[in-house]
Amino acid sequence: MAATELVEGVLQGDRRSLARLISLIENEDPSVGYALSQLYRHTGRAHIVGVTGPPGSGKSTLVDRLTTEYRRRNKTVGIVCVDPSSPFTGGALLGDRIRMQGHALDKDVFVRSMGTRGHLGGLARATSDTVRAMDAFGKDIVVVETVGAGQSEVEVIDLAHTILVIDVPAAGDDIQAIKAGIMEIADIFVVNKSDLPGADKKAAEINAMLDTDPRERAWRPPVMMTNARGGEGIAALVDKIVEHRKYLEDSGLLAQKGLQRSRDELRTIMSYKLTRELMEKLEGRPEYEQALRKIAERDDDPYSVAERLIAEFLVDYGRSVKENGERKRR
Amino acid sequence: MAATELVEGVLQGDRRSLARLISLIENEDPSVGYALSQLYRHTGRAHIVGVTGPPGSGKSTLVDRLTTEYRRRNKTVGIVCVDPSSPFTGGALLGDRIRMQGHALDKDVFVRSMGTRGHLGGLARATSDTVRAMDAFGKDIVVVETVGAGQSEVEVIDLAHTILVIDVPAAGDDIQAIKAGIMEIADIFVVNKSDLPGADKKAAEINAMLDTDPRERAWRPPVMMTNARGGEGIAALVDKIVEHRKYLEDSGLLAQKGLQRSRDELRTIMSYKLTRELMEKLEGRPEYEQALRKIAERDDDPYSVAERLIAEFLVDYGRSVKENGERKRR
Repeated sequence: MAATELVEGVLQGDRRSLARLISLIENEDPSVGYALSQLYRHTGRAHIVGVTGPPGSGKSTLVDRLTTEYRRRNKTVGIVCVDPSSPFTGGALLGDRIRMQGHALDKDVFVRSMGTRGHLGGLARATSDTVRAMDAFGKDIVVVETVGAGQSEVEVIDLAHTILVIDVPAAGDDIQAIKAGIMEIADIFVVNKSDLPGADKKAAEINAMLDTDPRERAWRPPVMMTNARGGEGIAALVDKIVEHRKYLEDSGLLAQKGLQRSRDELRTIMSYKLTRELMEKLEGRPEYEQALRKIAERDDDPYSVAERLIAEFLVDYGRSVKENGERKRR
Repeated sequence: MAATELVEGVLQGDRRSLARLISLIENEDPSVGYALSQLYRHTGRAHIVGVTGPPGSGKSTLVDRLTTEYRRRNKTVGIVCVDPSSPFTGGALLGDRIRMQGHALDKDVFVRSMGTRGHLGGLARATSDTVRAMDAFGKDIVVVETVGAGQSEVEVIDLAHTILVIDVPAAGDDIQAIKAGIMEIADIFVVNKSDLPGADKKAAEINAMLDTDPRERAWRPPVMMTNARGGEGIAALVDKIVEHRKYLEDSGLLAQKGLQRSRDELRTIMSYKLTRELMEKLEGRPEYEQALRKIAERDDDPYSVAERLIAEFLVDYGRSVKENGERKRR
């Protein structure tokens, strides 16, 4: 399928086109840039909800229930499940099949799992592009679900408008505590498995921690109680997510976050393109291989070599501009 | 302290200079580039050993014992403890004080802990620079210890010559299993806590898994048994690490890895410098802010804007080269 057809398909709501595009994103196919640039203007409508929490906190069940509730409210839902700690396994695909079976026949729910391919930056980028594709596809809500083990997750769900951090009542040593860095990104805390003993205590602990936060903020993250398995507290949680979205809009924070995201993204894209242009000029050239050998043998250092090569690259480019100018004048 | 003095100090083996340099690295101080470029030619002598494994596998105790054994063999040791899952906490410093107390008075052991500052790529970079500083300082062995939870660790200990993956006998659900991606980077497996029941079974499992590996390889990762707390198996493990180093040297892999690392590093440095140069030209300019607003409002897309801005940047540079040329001719 050509990239233009793919774009058409996604915009017309064709699920197979969306699935195909996400595969191309995962495989870093060169045609993705064109497709995403065409889709970009059709994005910005979805409410992006991040869900994170330690393994065993019931994230998947919670996301399943949230989806049911959103569908009851006539909202279409896209779900991206990310596992940054599975670098090389193909487990993600199996995950797609065994989870979310309740929504398997619902054409207004689209689920996709992703594992790390290559480096972590690649996963954050692929997640972001996948969310964007689902947004352009027309999903009202896009949920990004990720295991909460640290910095990796912060990067992966950085794109969400509303971040849910899930915790559970103390249940022995088999469930990791939420890390400090994860606490700080929460817009809404969820104490799941509220039927277990200690749920109120856990909520009180989170509230106490929030009281020690010295920052003045207009939105104090609420602590919600759910029992995802039993379906309790889900409607109230969705109400709260909607309320947070309204807060972001009314306060101007949504626009502010959007601008910041554009800034980060433009920088990333420019850096990538510029580096690729430079490397295309350098790689394979004998002088370049020679310079690398000298660095490896400690006859030269990479910092000085980098400076020299960049200057040459820019001057070369300058020279070609100059020659073009002179040619035109003749 | 000026950067030149710092470099002098590190090369002369002054511990305070080394500590100061690492702090500058962590804080991404602008003077670091100069210092590292000066130190670079004095690196490449240390044997870099990576140690990773799940929480609770006894990594710290093992590293402590390895250090004792290396000291017994008259080798100097640097240790970098990295916790990629602690993004914002200041726990790393406390960690320095409470661990490795047995070596606190030994001037030939230098310990430093690092947590994530900013993004994960930053941590991998800071770790790499810190290892390099310890190498230039003259440490024979530099150990990089990191919690093994996934892709993050793969990136952090990618720089090691020899990677130890620690596992323990099945001990209930409180200890996470080693992830698939981590298994694949091991040069040596260590079953620690060999006094616990199930140690032999664990070793057999790892060996069985290694037998299913379809790759032909000259170095099949050995599975070593240790009881770090009791000090058993440590000397044999150090012998094995030395053997792996020799294998890398004899097979030419050490040189090959070094060249690949120079390639990756030069690319990273050039990309960083080139992007900084571009951003210095763009940021704050009204046209740039205008372009960002258009992206955020979906009036334009970041891919097209990136292409345009890069072309302009390069042409501008070209023009300035041209003008300089003409000025010289006059």
